[in-house]
Amino acid sequence: MTRSIPTRIYLNEDEMPKYWYNLRAEMKEKPDPILHPGTLKPVVHADMEPVFCKEAVKQELDDNTRLIPIPEGIQDFYRAYRPSALIRAYYLEKELGTPAEIYYKFEGTNTSGSHKLNSAGPQAFYAKQEGIQSLTTETGAGQWGTALSMACGFYGLDLTVYMVRVSSEQKPYRKAVMETYGAKVIPSPSNTTEAGRKILASDPNTGGSLGCAISEAIETAVKTDKCRYVLGSVLNHVALHQSIIGLETKTALDKYGIKPDIIIACAGGGSNLAGLIAPFMGEKLTGKSNARFIAVEPASCPTLTRGRYVYDFGDSAQTTPLLRMYTLGGSFMPSKNHAGGLRYHGMSPIVSKLFHDGHLEARSENQTDIFDAAIRFMKTEGILPAPESAHAIKVAIDEALECKKSGEKKVIVFGLSGTGYFDLSAYMAYNAKTLTDMVPSDEDLERGFASIPNIPQNK
Amino acid sequence: MTRSIPTRIYLNEDEMPKYWYNLRAEMKEKPDPILHPGTLKPVVHADMEPVFCKEAVKQELDDNTRLIPIPEGIQDFYRAYRPSALIRAYYLEKELGTPAEIYYKFEGTNTSGSHKLNSAGPQAFYAKQEGIQSLTTETGAGQWGTALSMACGFYGLDLTVYMVRVSSEQKPYRKAVMETYGAKVIPSPSNTTEAGRKILASDPNTGGSLGCAISEAIETAVKTDKCRYVLGSVLNHVALHQSIIGLETKTALDKYGIKPDIIIACAGGGSNLAGLIAPFMGEKLTGKSNARFIAVEPASCPTLTRGRYVYDFGDSAQTTPLLRMYTLGGSFMPSKNHAGGLRYHGMSPIVSKLFHDGHLEARSENQTDIFDAAIRFMKTEGILPAPESAHAIKVAIDEALECKKSGEKKVIVFGLSGTGYFDLSAYMAYNAKTLTDMVPSDEDLERGFASIPNIPQNK
Repeated sequence: MTRSIPTRIYLNEDEMPKYWYNLRAEMKEKPDPILHPGTLKPVVHADMEPVFCKEAVKQELDDNTRLIPIPEGIQDFYRAYRPSALIRAYYLEKELGTPAEIYYKFEGTNTSGSHKLNSAGPQAFYAKQEGIQSLTTETGAGQWGTALSMACGFYGLDLTVYMVRVSSEQKPYRKAVMETYGAKVIPSPSNTTEAGRKILASDPNTGGSLGCAISEAIETAVKTDKCRYVLGSVLNHVALHQSIIGLETKTALDKYGIKPDIIIACAGGGSNLAGLIAPFMGEKLTGKSNARFIAVEPASCPTLTRGRYVYDFGDSAQTTPLLRMYTLGGSFMPSKNHAGGLRYHGMSPIVSKLFHDGHLEARSENQTDIFDAAIRFMKTEGILPAPESAHAIKVAIDEALECKKSGEKKVIVFGLSGTGYFDLSAYMAYNAKTLTDMVPSDEDLERGFASIPNIPQNK
Repeated sequence: MTRSIPTRIYLNEDEMPKYWYNLRAEMKEKPDPILHPGTLKPVVHADMEPVFCKEAVKQELDDNTRLIPIPEGIQDFYRAYRPSALIRAYYLEKELGTPAEIYYKFEGTNTSGSHKLNSAGPQAFYAKQEGIQSLTTETGAGQWGTALSMACGFYGLDLTVYMVRVSSEQKPYRKAVMETYGAKVIPSPSNTTEAGRKILASDPNTGGSLGCAISEAIETAVKTDKCRYVLGSVLNHVALHQSIIGLETKTALDKYGIKPDIIIACAGGGSNLAGLIAPFMGEKLTGKSNARFIAVEPASCPTLTRGRYVYDFGDSAQTTPLLRMYTLGGSFMPSKNHAGGLRYHGMSPIVSKLFHDGHLEARSENQTDIFDAAIRFMKTEGILPAPESAHAIKVAIDEALECKKSGEKKVIVFGLSGTGYFDLSAYMAYNAKTLTDMVPSDEDLERGFASIPNIPQNK
């Protein structure tokens, strides 16, 4: 039996996007500007260039250009692992008995195991082009650090990764892959920076946080000659690079005349979500589509669903510019038994703005439910998902079961942002039934909110 | 720049093979028959059916039918992860500066991480169809056990995996994946079988061997109601299922009018090699091609390059039928510091016959050289290979560098049979420079040869 829509829709190499899609250019209500923490005025290029590569800064501050060309050197990098497949979840649909059509864009077949490579490549390319010799970054669950290690190996750049301590202990193999690609991996907080030493002094047993690892990575980048810092999520230029996910997805769906009704993605810093939804949200904002968009986050780090939409620092040492975003406060740390990624205290300003303006829904899910969904998915679709991606799976299943009740034949598209091959300690905990749900109390949240800067913009 | 040959050649779903290719039907000189160990006469269906599924036995003993239809139920299984990409190694070619064209068939994007799923699916399908409720098997490096766990999860069969002890200690995550898919994993030798207890009594600290794990799995299968044993390599029906690798490769190359000059694959039990070469070797045997074929094995388990071509048991407890094959003897165990797979004492009778008759070359390689090649490959091509597959990479690089010397524009095709995501302890040892080469001495080999049965056929 040959299916009219194949299980895997692949694009040809010449159908790969030649431009990234800058969703901000389509937004009538733009995200609020990034502010300099000293002057509280919008940052200019010169403010950010000591920390980031020039081209990244240019893209970060450009909210007008709709299509931004992908340089040939980056297209060459993308051809090493793209285009990725858009997969029709025939097996899962059958098991659920749903009339819905479910599709997922699978970004996990590259060795880093996730979509993060889509921005790691460009950022390493620009650094090389600008004569930078080394990069620093942070990683939480490890996807971003692994991706950047690959990109730095490819372009011949030195790399130091500050890895959230609890993750580096849970995931020795993540560290091994990064080191095999030539990166130096330092568990954070560490004694190598002021920011790390300060946090260790106040809490020697801390499991660390992304906010703290960012502070350490920035401090090291600024102190080191010909070195820059790169970030794997949150910022506008990262969302821009990730738009390749959505552009490929749209091209693949268009080939078969398929219009999505619901688009679902997990959200930590928001880059995977922003990337997948970009061209579809562009259609919605311009009145060409009525699709629904759902961001899924962990109940243990409920940025959109329980956070505040204010100006906050991107890191815990309060050294970055200020971003208007949903935030739990830079001092917020998810419970140590939180096994997946998506542990950042803030959220992409683009995603935050879309949510604030009602264009996007958000849900939070407990990790035991997430793993139940992951197991159901891997037994039918054959792919062991990253715990992050399993958040999207959970809601896709819920929506498909809603369709079963209502009899509606909706088209559900979700982002399978990565695989869980390096997250097996979490699956082992699930198998051993030691995985528990830890939802922060209102008091926990208040403690986090207390670290949000008390500035006029936040009144 | 769009390339005339894309980096990744994907087949459409309707181009997927509908038939397996039975290479034996093309061989004028057939492999010698499998013998009953008691009578020393060729086995008949009834001899094998208490151990294996009926359809597997039928395929095992059929050396005449050239094309064997793939049932729709198995095609459905294949569609969950196939067709796999044939990748042009543009990045590696550039780094080597070779005029050769290098292609690799990548079988590692499914969650089991290797080609083994191509036979696990069919064997689980047939078991289900024949009313079998549970399966047993062995696994060495873990690829086969993982693949069969996935297949049994998909078809709803119970599974017990005897995992070579040294591997189960080196690769806790392999065990975790198998358990997540619902399999029971027992380090071998174990106390659950006669065969295991016997070996433990003589050597309590043994790291185990595939031969021993096979004995335990067969013993358990025979003792258990509605239970059968399945094997992941060596046997004819496994090679048959794996022919899908070669068939897809040939279809992809034919699309672009490419004729391979050299085809390279790693060889442990020989299923990956036999599968990749099948249709190409068929052309060679019928005078339609002059391609060279190279099997690559570890210097620490040199079956083809230093073994004997005789009748031997498939397991160490001497319970299986006798196979005429290259063998190091059922008691041979590779050194404990051997990090990759490919540790079986014997070799597929098909591959053995082709090698014996001069249609196939063989090389053995040291593991430190293998890992050097793996690192070179992953830094250019971006894929972290299984140590097994790195054997093929090593020889592909050697051949490409020969082309660089001679200026020849040869077409080299190799099998990238799997990824190394679950083999990171070996990479960690490589990074820490604790990986060493252990080549068995002539005395080591003689001790192994002493376990080969002393029967008239071997005089």
